[in-house]
Amino acid sequence: MELITLNSTIETLLNHRSIRKFTQKPLTREQIETIVESAQMASTSSFIQAYTIIGVKDEAKKAKLAELAGNQPYVEHNGHFFVFCADLHRHKTAGSMENTDVTASIESTEKFLVAAVDAALAAQNAVIAAESMELGICYIGGLRNDIEAVGELLNLPDYVIPVFGLAVGEPAAESSIKPRLPLTHIYHEDSYERNEKAFTKGLEEYNSTISAYYDLRTAGKRKDRWTEQMAGMLKEPKRLHMKGYLEKKGFMKH
Amino acid sequence: MELITLNSTIETLLNHRSIRKFTQKPLTREQIETIVESAQMASTSSFIQAYTIIGVKDEAKKAKLAELAGNQPYVEHNGHFFVFCADLHRHKTAGSMENTDVTASIESTEKFLVAAVDAALAAQNAVIAAESMELGICYIGGLRNDIEAVGELLNLPDYVIPVFGLAVGEPAAESSIKPRLPLTHIYHEDSYERNEKAFTKGLEEYNSTISAYYDLRTAGKRKDRWTEQMAGMLKEPKRLHMKGYLEKKGFMKH
Repeated sequence: MELITLNSTIETLLNHRSIRKFTQKPLTREQIETIVESAQMASTSSFIQAYTIIGVKDEAKKAKLAELAGNQPYVEHNGHFFVFCADLHRHKTAGSMENTDVTASIESTEKFLVAAVDAALAAQNAVIAAESMELGICYIGGLRNDIEAVGELLNLPDYVIPVFGLAVGEPAAESSIKPRLPLTHIYHEDSYERNEKAFTKGLEEYNSTISAYYDLRTAGKRKDRWTEQMAGMLKEPKRLHMKGYLEKKGFMKH
Repeated sequence: MELITLNSTIETLLNHRSIRKFTQKPLTREQIETIVESAQMASTSSFIQAYTIIGVKDEAKKAKLAELAGNQPYVEHNGHFFVFCADLHRHKTAGSMENTDVTASIESTEKFLVAAVDAALAAQNAVIAAESMELGICYIGGLRNDIEAVGELLNLPDYVIPVFGLAVGEPAAESSIKPRLPLTHIYHEDSYERNEKAFTKGLEEYNSTISAYYDLRTAGKRKDRWTEQMAGMLKEPKRLHMKGYLEKKGFMKH
């Protein structure tokens, strides 16, 4: 594809790679506020703004989060660490202020989905803002390994859960752009691709791409196929506490 | 805040407003591909890429989707219409290709959350790419009003659900930037704000901001408070079919 539509924003988007090593240079207050304000301008379902962002600065808390996330050092060592939470506690309060019982609504699966999507849209805006300032980022799903402990550490009330973390900072190590699935595998027109043969063939082609990527990066030590990675990762279900935790915090009751 | 960190990408982020009226000028193939490629470069949990994007071009399907979304004309009339789907069908296939049973994993609440977040991160990159090209966008949560019919219309297999739509096109009407919650209400440091008095006071201040916004825009006809809007919207739970539909499609069984 010839990118005559390329502009500096699209360059930033296409140039994304996760950074897992940061300098210790803290973000300035201005950088933090620009990132949060950018996050806030993301679309939000019916203006619900169903998320909260916790910036973690306390060193002991950061060390604890790094441990809870499975000893990921970049959770502790970075320029700033954000936790994006799905939040309907604010709406419970809004209901009280208006003498309206909103409980059945905020306890629905629909509204949990809305809150999780709202948090993700805001986070991705935060990421683009950070990357446009030449900072690096890494999402931290590992916060869900022991999500209850993370929720307690951050003092989250009912109707609030941490969805993921986001480490941001000045990159201290290079990393490379990982090739994505073929566009034709992600993007269909008018109808889902139900031809299993074409579907499988697309994955086989992508396997070759990914194998070659690892082969080159590791000087022949790794040649994983994508389907092999996925099968390995998905062989055993993980974080089976999620359903119970969500219900305990008030979400997805019906 | 003085925005000395402002760059053209952050300008795009901060300048967002939803557009609900588009010209009929269709996106070019190049614009569509740039948007999808930008979406694909978003972060994805453990490289799982658990989403699919369906571009709807068929006029009859677009008209049907507009009807299903609650007669929203901009679902039908736009430059292009995307549907972002959470997708673990691809991973079921990947498991089969590797002779690995991944069922228990993809049926977990954890993996549904991963897929929904993946779809949202990709969508927000698509939005930023589109807006950087001076196109307007509107997310369409209304696709979940009758999510089963939407899924059938797009021929989605098990382990795939439409999360939301995205209308994109050349703006045909102005709209204004809606003021978000105060930064101090969205962003906390080290711990969630559990002081209910301060929390409520923040919402009251925001109510004044939102009332003034509507007052100005409608020449005094509307002065809704934000908490009033939220209480009104959340009074009756909506889309209570979501839990059953998700389970029927294979998601969130445990």
